[in-house]
Amino acid sequence: VRKISTFCASFLKSWYLIGREDPRRVVHAVKVGVALTLVSFLYIFQPLFEGLGKNAMWAVMTVVVVLEFTAGATLCKGLNRGFGTLCAGSLAFLIEVVAEKSGKTFRGFFVGASVFTIGFGCTYVRFHSKIKRNYDYGVLVFLLTFNLISVSSFREENVVPLARDRLCTIAIGCGICLFMSLIVFPNWSGEDLHSYTVRKLEGLATSIEACVSIYFHDEDKDGNIVDVKATKEVISNGYRLVLDSKSSDESLALFASWEPRHSRHCYKYPWQQYVKLGTVLRHFGYTAVSLHGCLESEIQTTPSVRALFRGPCIQVANEVSKVLLDLASSLRTHRRCSPDVLSDHLHQALHDLNSAIRSQPRLFLNSKKNRSAAKHATNNNLMVALPSAKTDVAALVEKRNNNINGNTNNSNKVKAQPVLRPTLSKIAMLSLEFSEALPFAAFAALLVEMAARLELVIEEVEELARQASFKEYEEEDLVS
Amino acid sequence: VRKISTFCASFLKSWYLIGREDPRRVVHAVKVGVALTLVSFLYIFQPLFEGLGKNAMWAVMTVVVVLEFTAGATLCKGLNRGFGTLCAGSLAFLIEVVAEKSGKTFRGFFVGASVFTIGFGCTYVRFHSKIKRNYDYGVLVFLLTFNLISVSSFREENVVPLARDRLCTIAIGCGICLFMSLIVFPNWSGEDLHSYTVRKLEGLATSIEACVSIYFHDEDKDGNIVDVKATKEVISNGYRLVLDSKSSDESLALFASWEPRHSRHCYKYPWQQYVKLGTVLRHFGYTAVSLHGCLESEIQTTPSVRALFRGPCIQVANEVSKVLLDLASSLRTHRRCSPDVLSDHLHQALHDLNSAIRSQPRLFLNSKKNRSAAKHATNNNLMVALPSAKTDVAALVEKRNNNINGNTNNSNKVKAQPVLRPTLSKIAMLSLEFSEALPFAAFAALLVEMAARLELVIEEVEELARQASFKEYEEEDLVS
Repeated sequence: VRKISTFCASFLKSWYLIGREDPRRVVHAVKVGVALTLVSFLYIFQPLFEGLGKNAMWAVMTVVVVLEFTAGATLCKGLNRGFGTLCAGSLAFLIEVVAEKSGKTFRGFFVGASVFTIGFGCTYVRFHSKIKRNYDYGVLVFLLTFNLISVSSFREENVVPLARDRLCTIAIGCGICLFMSLIVFPNWSGEDLHSYTVRKLEGLATSIEACVSIYFHDEDKDGNIVDVKATKEVISNGYRLVLDSKSSDESLALFASWEPRHSRHCYKYPWQQYVKLGTVLRHFGYTAVSLHGCLESEIQTTPSVRALFRGPCIQVANEVSKVLLDLASSLRTHRRCSPDVLSDHLHQALHDLNSAIRSQPRLFLNSKKNRSAAKHATNNNLMVALPSAKTDVAALVEKRNNNINGNTNNSNKVKAQPVLRPTLSKIAMLSLEFSEALPFAAFAALLVEMAARLELVIEEVEELARQASFKEYEEEDLVS
Repeated sequence: VRKISTFCASFLKSWYLIGREDPRRVVHAVKVGVALTLVSFLYIFQPLFEGLGKNAMWAVMTVVVVLEFTAGATLCKGLNRGFGTLCAGSLAFLIEVVAEKSGKTFRGFFVGASVFTIGFGCTYVRFHSKIKRNYDYGVLVFLLTFNLISVSSFREENVVPLARDRLCTIAIGCGICLFMSLIVFPNWSGEDLHSYTVRKLEGLATSIEACVSIYFHDEDKDGNIVDVKATKEVISNGYRLVLDSKSSDESLALFASWEPRHSRHCYKYPWQQYVKLGTVLRHFGYTAVSLHGCLESEIQTTPSVRALFRGPCIQVANEVSKVLLDLASSLRTHRRCSPDVLSDHLHQALHDLNSAIRSQPRLFLNSKKNRSAAKHATNNNLMVALPSAKTDVAALVEKRNNNINGNTNNSNKVKAQPVLRPTLSKIAMLSLEFSEALPFAAFAALLVEMAARLELVIEEVEELARQASFKEYEEEDLVS
C-alpha cells in the first residue's frame, strides 16, 4: 500500500510540475474544456439543435482541432481551415455543375477521376517547402473537404444546403475558438518569441561567465571546488537553449506573423528579424560550446600559466556577458540600447588581454638581466601595444565597413602591420612550450572570436530595435 | 505573352524540381490519389454504400489524415487513431450507461460536465513531453471521438450500431492506408534515418577537408582563387546538415520505432542510438563551425607562418575526414569498421603536427649559428617529441578510461610531464609575435579537439554497430 501511495504521490507531483512550470497550461486546458462545453450546447439545447441538426458535429470537430495554445497558432489553423473549406466547397460545387447532366455511370467515373487528381495534386503541393511551412493544414483541409463533399454529393440530391449548414457550423466552431484564444487570457506567440530571445541572451551571458570562472577556478583556493559540477550544468543549460532553437524560433515567428499586431508604433512587427537574431545567436552559441570544449579537453595548460591571464580573460568574458545582459534588458524593456556604452569597456578589456599576452613570454625568464630587459621591453611594448590593440577592436568594427567599402581597408592594415612587427620580432623572447600553450591560445582566441561575433549580435539587435521602432535609448533607463 | 510564358516555365520547373529532388514524392502523391479513389468507391458502388451508408465518410477522413509519407509515420498515426477511437468509444459508452436512467435535464448537465472534464484532462495531458512525443495524435483523436459520440448520443436513441459502423469504416480506412504505405512502394523512416546519418558523416568530412584546403590555399598560386566562394559553400553545406538535425533525427527515430523490423539479426533495431550518434555529430559539427570561423576571422596569421604547418595540418584534416568517410561507408554497407585502422594514421598525423609546432619557433632564427643549434635541437627534439605526441593521442584514448578509472591516470601524466618540460624549456626559442600566432594556435587546437571528439564519434558508431549486429569487419571490404 505504501509503495502504491508513493508511486501515486510522485505521479501526481510530475503532473503538478507540468502546470507549475508554466501556469498558462492549466489556463489553456480550462479554456479548451469551456469551449467544448459551449459547443456541445449546440446539441444539448433543443432550439439550437433544431436549427443545425447533426451538422453541429462539425463545430465540435473544429473546436477540438483548431484551438491551440497560442493565439497565433489558433488563427493560423482557423484561417487555414476556413479558406480550405471554402475553396474545396466551391471547387466541388463547380465539378458538381459539370457532372450533373451526365448519366450515373459516367458521373461515378468523373468523381473518381477528380478525387484522384485532386488527391495527387494536393499531396504533391504539400512537398513545396513554402506551402508546407504556411499552408500545410489548409491544403489538408481542402483535400478532406473536397473529398467529403464531392463523394457525398454523389448520394445526396441537393448539396447546397448541406454545404451551407456545414460552413455555418464550422464558422461557429471557429468563432468560439477565436473568442477563446484572442479574448480570454490570450497567449501570444510573439510574446513567447520575445521572452524566449531575451532568455537566450541571458543564458549565453551566464554560460560564458561560468565557463571562464571554471577555467580559472583553480586559482581561488577557497574551497569552492564542490560546485564545479553545478557550474558545468549552468554552462550547458545556458547555451543548450540557443543551440536547438531553430525549429521553435521558426514556428513561433510563423504563428506570431498571423497574430494582430499589438504594438502601436509599427505596421508590421519584424518577427523574421527575431529568427535572424536567433541564427546569429546560434552561431555565437557554437563558440560558447567550443569554449566549454576547452574546459573538457584532455590537454590542458598548467594552472600557473593560466593564472597569468586570469585578470584580462575574466575581464573580457565579463564584458561580453555584460553586453549580452544589456542587450537582453534593452530587448525586455523594448528600448534601444546604446552601442557606445557597450563597446567601450570591451575595447579596454580586449586591449588588456592583448597586452597581457604580449608581455607574458618575458615573465618566464628568471634571470635578473632578462627581467630588467623585459621591463624595458614592456614599457616599450605598452606604447606599441596600444595602437595595435586598437586595430584588433577596430578590425571588428571595420568588418562591417569592409562589406561596404570593399578591400580599401585592407591596404591600410597591410601598411599598419609592418610598423609593428619589426619592433616586436627584434625582442628575443623565451616562449612557452608551445603545445602546452596551445590550449590556452585556443581559449583566448575563442574569447576574441566571441567578441567579434558579439558585434554581429549587436548589429542584429539594433536592426530589430530599428524595425520594431523601440523607444529611444535614455541614460537613466540602463539601470534596470 | 512572353513574360507569362517564362513565368509559367519557371513555375513548372520549380514544381518539376521538387519531384526531381526526391522521386518518391511523386510516387507518394500517386499513392494518396489511388487510396482516395479506392475509398470513394465505398460511396460510388451501390452494394458497398448500402452496407455502410453515410458512415463511409469516416473512411475518407481517415485516409486523408492518416496516410503519411513514410510507413512509420502512417503506422504511428493509424495506431494512435485506432486506439484513441476505441478508448473514447468505450468511455463514452460507460458514461452513457451511467446517465441512461436519469432525466433529460440531468443528463444534459452530466454530458456537459463530462465533456468539460475530458477536454481539460486531455489538453493538460498533451503538455507532458513524453506523451506529446509519442501519443499526441492519439489523445487528440480520443478527445474528438469522445465528444462526437457522447454529444451525438444525446440525440441518438441507440448509439451502439452507430459506434460499430463508425469503427468499421475507420478500420477500412486504416486498412487501405496500411496497405498503401507498407506494401505498395513503402518508404521506411528507418532507411531515411540511416542514409541521413551516412550523409551527415560524409558532409562533415568534405567540410573539414574544404576548410583546411581554403585555410592553406594562399600557398598554391595556380589560379584556383576563383572557386574559394564555391568551396565556402561546400563547407557550410557540409556542416549545416548536421547542426539543425535534432528535430528531424528525433522524429525519424520515433517513426522508425513504429516500423516492423526489416533486419534479421536483432530483435529491436536501435533507432535511439542513431539519435545519440546524431548528438555526438552535432557536437563535432560545432567544432567544424569554429574551424570555419577561423577562416572568416578578421585577425589572420600571415601566409608565411601558415605555410610552415601546411603539411601536417592538411595531413591531420585528411586523416580525420578519411576516418569519417570510413565510418560512413561502414555504416552504409552495414559492416563493422576496424578501429585499429582508423586510429593509426591519425596518430601519425597528430604526431607530425605536434613536432612541426614544436620545431617551428627555431625556423625564425636567421643567423647561421642559431640555425645549426636549431638543427641540433630538432634532432634532440624529435626523439623527445615522439613519446610526448604519444601522450597527446594516448590522452584521447585515456579519456574513456578516465571515465572508468577515475583520476588514477592523472598522476601518471603529472609524472610524465616534468621529464619533458625541462628538456624543452632549456632551449631558447624565438617565438612568433604571439597575437599573430594566436589565430593559428586556435586553428591547430581546434584540429586537435576535432581528433579528440572523433574518438567519441567512433565510439557511438561502434556501439550502433554492436547493437544493430552489423556484419563483422573484413579486410577486403574496406575498398568501397
